[in-house]
Amino acid sequence: MEDVVKKATDVTEKVCEWRSPEQLKELLDLELTDGGESESKILQHCRDAIRYSIKTTHPRFFNQLYAGMEPYSMVASFITEALKPSLYTYEVAPVFTLIEDAVLRKMMEMIGWEEGGDGIFNAGGSMSNMYAVNLARYHHYPHIKELGLSAAPRLVIFTSRECHYSISKAAALLGVGTKNVYVEKFLGCVCACVSVCVQGAVPFMVNATAGTTVLGAFDPIEEIADICEKYNLWLHVDACWGGAALMSQKHKHLLKGIHRANSVAWNPHKMLMACLQCSAFLVRDKTHLLQRCHSAQASYLFQQDKFYDVSYDTGDKSVQCSRKPDAFKFWLMWKALGTRELEQRVDRALAMARYLAQEVEKREGFRLLMDPEYANVCFWYIPPSLRNLSDGPEFWKKLHTVAPVIKERMMKKGSMMVGYQPHGDKANFFRMIIISPQVSKQDMDFVLDEIHNLGKDL
Amino acid sequence: MEDVVKKATDVTEKVCEWRSPEQLKELLDLELTDGGESESKILQHCRDAIRYSIKTTHPRFFNQLYAGMEPYSMVASFITEALKPSLYTYEVAPVFTLIEDAVLRKMMEMIGWEEGGDGIFNAGGSMSNMYAVNLARYHHYPHIKELGLSAAPRLVIFTSRECHYSISKAAALLGVGTKNVYVEKFLGCVCACVSVCVQGAVPFMVNATAGTTVLGAFDPIEEIADICEKYNLWLHVDACWGGAALMSQKHKHLLKGIHRANSVAWNPHKMLMACLQCSAFLVRDKTHLLQRCHSAQASYLFQQDKFYDVSYDTGDKSVQCSRKPDAFKFWLMWKALGTRELEQRVDRALAMARYLAQEVEKREGFRLLMDPEYANVCFWYIPPSLRNLSDGPEFWKKLHTVAPVIKERMMKKGSMMVGYQPHGDKANFFRMIIISPQVSKQDMDFVLDEIHNLGKDL
Repeated sequence: MEDVVKKATDVTEKVCEWRSPEQLKELLDLELTDGGESESKILQHCRDAIRYSIKTTHPRFFNQLYAGMEPYSMVASFITEALKPSLYTYEVAPVFTLIEDAVLRKMMEMIGWEEGGDGIFNAGGSMSNMYAVNLARYHHYPHIKELGLSAAPRLVIFTSRECHYSISKAAALLGVGTKNVYVEKFLGCVCACVSVCVQGAVPFMVNATAGTTVLGAFDPIEEIADICEKYNLWLHVDACWGGAALMSQKHKHLLKGIHRANSVAWNPHKMLMACLQCSAFLVRDKTHLLQRCHSAQASYLFQQDKFYDVSYDTGDKSVQCSRKPDAFKFWLMWKALGTRELEQRVDRALAMARYLAQEVEKREGFRLLMDPEYANVCFWYIPPSLRNLSDGPEFWKKLHTVAPVIKERMMKKGSMMVGYQPHGDKANFFRMIIISPQVSKQDMDFVLDEIHNLGKDL
Repeated sequence: MEDVVKKATDVTEKVCEWRSPEQLKELLDLELTDGGESESKILQHCRDAIRYSIKTTHPRFFNQLYAGMEPYSMVASFITEALKPSLYTYEVAPVFTLIEDAVLRKMMEMIGWEEGGDGIFNAGGSMSNMYAVNLARYHHYPHIKELGLSAAPRLVIFTSRECHYSISKAAALLGVGTKNVYVEKFLGCVCACVSVCVQGAVPFMVNATAGTTVLGAFDPIEEIADICEKYNLWLHVDACWGGAALMSQKHKHLLKGIHRANSVAWNPHKMLMACLQCSAFLVRDKTHLLQRCHSAQASYLFQQDKFYDVSYDTGDKSVQCSRKPDAFKFWLMWKALGTRELEQRVDRALAMARYLAQEVEKREGFRLLMDPEYANVCFWYIPPSLRNLSDGPEFWKKLHTVAPVIKERMMKKGSMMVGYQPHGDKANFFRMIIISPQVSKQDMDFVLDEIHNLGKDL
């Protein structure tokens, strides 16, 4: 545990000890055999697993939309791992059932649903978005649950261009079809709605994104809510990443209008640093829509003749059967830190992102993709050899190959981890994600220095 | 941790410290506020959460299809909770990607897929069953992924009467419709297939259950496989509960023919005691069907210009985005114990179930529902006041009310936890589940004595 908790978060240690799949297979003895192994061998397996794992809690890990180590949340994780509760019935998970309810209610308060609503924690934001599609469909066409889609008209989902890929995955899984996800810039949405209806397809929901994955951009929720109200469409806000801004008096304007959404996905395991996974799906409805949509009334689990109020058995709201008590990982840290500390952390992360963006603008060889709205800072590094090229196709083609090489070098060195990606017609660029309060301006400077050092010869 | 690990598994302690939802809300201070709380208060919250939680690892917890404490698996849990890997890319989870692959391959070997296959760990058996429905559909009608179901014929799933409710949930979610799940006794399946086709609906899969939830019964896989081959239907075997019998030379005949399945769901977190959740979905296909069915090719995560072999990025096989490294919890204990020890545990649990069934038959006032095929022992307790009643509707009506009262009393006393349920036209009966090697014949005797003591006045 010394290795896994202390060393992993120590800035003087490496973020990763990179090995290729082939090398790592050699190093780890993966095979499972008839006889067991000694305690000392098992301990060595644990040490190896830790050694060659990526230290996602390291202060120089900026690769994903989660980072850092929150000790209270980790303690909560350990407690629930050891207790092994499963959140289908109050009978098996009384404490965690009540805690989930308390956390959901508080999150709804932050969203601005004064009259409350309903919700459920589940295994990730993709599942929350999937729930949203199913709920929107059930709200409009409840008979699909029984009869299936073959009796229904062609249904259409609207979403913004920058939405997470889980909307598409949900459309495929739920039988809506990926081609029936209409990707729109929202000003064109009204006309599109009308024209689609004319073609015999029926739009039933709009997905807006609060904090997009790559750019950290926010869709204009108020405008979209106006359209949804006018055309009677379910409004889902995917705030998995951006929802944390609701904690901040300074930044919550980014989500203005979110109280008008029918459903919201919000992952405290991202910006708010609850341990993985901690992912909430929230619904404004107060008529048990979530339960009605997903229930199967298994008589072996949800007996109606129990000796307590069975409305506390939340399992039939879910598409899962056994379900982990993820809310506790958020509740315990929230208890310990209070809302104000969470607010300060968000403010600090966004200020740090702004600092990094300014540094990018100042430095030669760096170019900012856009001003950060949130904690994503997207930029190109232009090695000296390309700095005199004119800004044409040749330049971008060459620049496209730079980030992958720098990424390879940083992983092999183990000094830090920063993601890169292409995006639309944009050549590969770096995406820095700033989350943890352990991260300082020095770390920001280090990142830019290190990218330059790793790439100046390219 | 003393409380949560040692006390929870101590047979002299209570299984639960029952409080009603209303009482528990009073006892726990659930509210989340602006200011944080002191370390000592947080410690008290942890103690309270542990105290009032159900001790599912306690030797007298027989309430669900999981039980007991497996220390190696718990250590693996703690390591992964602290490391926070997410299994979408090799880049972020190199060790756990390879371990997942090694465990899946070994499980496929146990199933008898000599040429291997594909698979994924996911958040529970319900999700595995959902994957099966989606994969079967994609296999037969790949265009549904893009075009949706509105262009498709009415699709039909066959399943046995005792199947888990997640098949119905999957049918609802995926737009197949719960009414298109045809519940069949399998001998009638052939005729049903034909008649359904005549009506214009198209059967595309059969779900067989290996180890049903309530009775622990096994569908005849060989017979069902014959039908599936004849009619070109996808055969999915839900072996979430019964899969563990594959570990046992003595009991694997229960799943005879499973190698002919197209897909298998198998949860090591159940009979094999890996920590929650540990749930595998396995596919015999070797043409990347899983990937093709679920992929969305997000360019920010699954870049094709990475410096390592990106076939190790398994995330696009999943409907989740971030995904926990659950296979490690099984791998580490399997490494430590070896296949033979796992086999002995399964044999021991099933022998113990048989012992309990014999005791039930011997004792006055107990009546066995059926001979156990697996680790479920289902029986009624008949209090002295009902023993002279004749076996008519009046008797069953009264007997139906007995189990809920005994359950209430055992929970309030905290002496043990055993589930009860009605089933089809059967009145409420107890379902004992025997899993843990910590459980002895004395515990079996205790259960029957305790049920009698708690219910003899009814």
